[in-house]
Amino acid sequence: MAQNISPEIERLIKLLSKLPGLGPRSARRAALELIKKREPLMRPLVTAMSDAADKIEECGVCGNIDAANPCHICAAPGRDQSVICVVQDVGDLWAMERAATFKGVYHVLGGTLSAIDGIRPEDLRIAGLIGRVKGGGISEVILAMNATVDGQTTAHYITDHIEGPNQAGERVTISRLAHGVPVGGELDYLDDGTINAALSSRRPF
Amino acid sequence: MAQNISPEIERLIKLLSKLPGLGPRSARRAALELIKKREPLMRPLVTAMSDAADKIEECGVCGNIDAANPCHICAAPGRDQSVICVVQDVGDLWAMERAATFKGVYHVLGGTLSAIDGIRPEDLRIAGLIGRVKGGGISEVILAMNATVDGQTTAHYITDHIEGPNQAGERVTISRLAHGVPVGGELDYLDDGTINAALSSRRPF
Repeated sequence: MAQNISPEIERLIKLLSKLPGLGPRSARRAALELIKKREPLMRPLVTAMSDAADKIEECGVCGNIDAANPCHICAAPGRDQSVICVVQDVGDLWAMERAATFKGVYHVLGGTLSAIDGIRPEDLRIAGLIGRVKGGGISEVILAMNATVDGQTTAHYITDHIEGPNQAGERVTISRLAHGVPVGGELDYLDDGTINAALSSRRPF
Repeated sequence: MAQNISPEIERLIKLLSKLPGLGPRSARRAALELIKKREPLMRPLVTAMSDAADKIEECGVCGNIDAANPCHICAAPGRDQSVICVVQDVGDLWAMERAATFKGVYHVLGGTLSAIDGIRPEDLRIAGLIGRVKGGGISEVILAMNATVDGQTTAHYITDHIEGPNQAGERVTISRLAHGVPVGGELDYLDDGTINAALSSRRPF
């Protein structure tokens, strides 16, 4: 940065540029916008951020983030506590909730196993998941990790540890999301793997 | 947004999505990152933002933003107070300062004249500029507005009002940035206007 920017602004730009989606250039634009819209934007954002920093915590059951613990979803009386959807991150949980079809509960792993990044099972919320499943009362586990190598490795690892009867002797169904053509997607733009998966899982019309 | 996100997070996402460069999707990612990096990122950002909101103000002379008024640049003893570079926004001032060649002072208009957006001379810091120039002690005004229609309209408007002798009877040189091929630029990717401008302003090699 130039030497003639005041240290207050420079520090603001530096911190903003650490947000995902903002590089040094867009962080400068964001800082200018914040200073220009001091009362309508910067002050409310300060309040919202300190509020979130003080109140938001991880749900002790599923790993979702919320001001309540257990979170709203785990505590909701209308949700089916016997179906757990396993997702990588809170962002994926939000995506599932936006789709608004799933009425069970979640388990947020906090990432995927990765040999390259050195992420081992104990770095993720996997032991907690095994505990929930083995403890009983669960009829189905839906593995909704991303369809990446790491996501699928993690899915296999989890399957190995939760398949078979639980402590009460009940069987738990393990399922995964279907592969196929995205709704609104064009075949011409899809990779061979997706087309093959969609073809082999074809359904009567 | 989903109905199952806590209101604290939802408010944070909504405010973040108002920053330039962040849409609803990247605002969600930014909010998650902030909550994940609470101590190393979110708390320092809260401090930096309230600091900036409290301390940063517009320079009464040139319109730059700084914790000091007049700003560091206007107050710097090493800078030539007789040369004023007129820019649209503080971001353009920063761009000039990063180039680190200009040793004069600035005047930040705060935008450009625009018939479509209804921006008139009195909405910009134009009267202040005319006052500085007519007040004397200024040898050159460099018009460094963007090379857009609105930028050049503004440049012509300003020229009309500052050309001619000032109150002390001195003449003020009015100049504009050169048009030409950007350094590192390839001819094939340039528009005709730029190539024509570069050709007609060609220099001995």
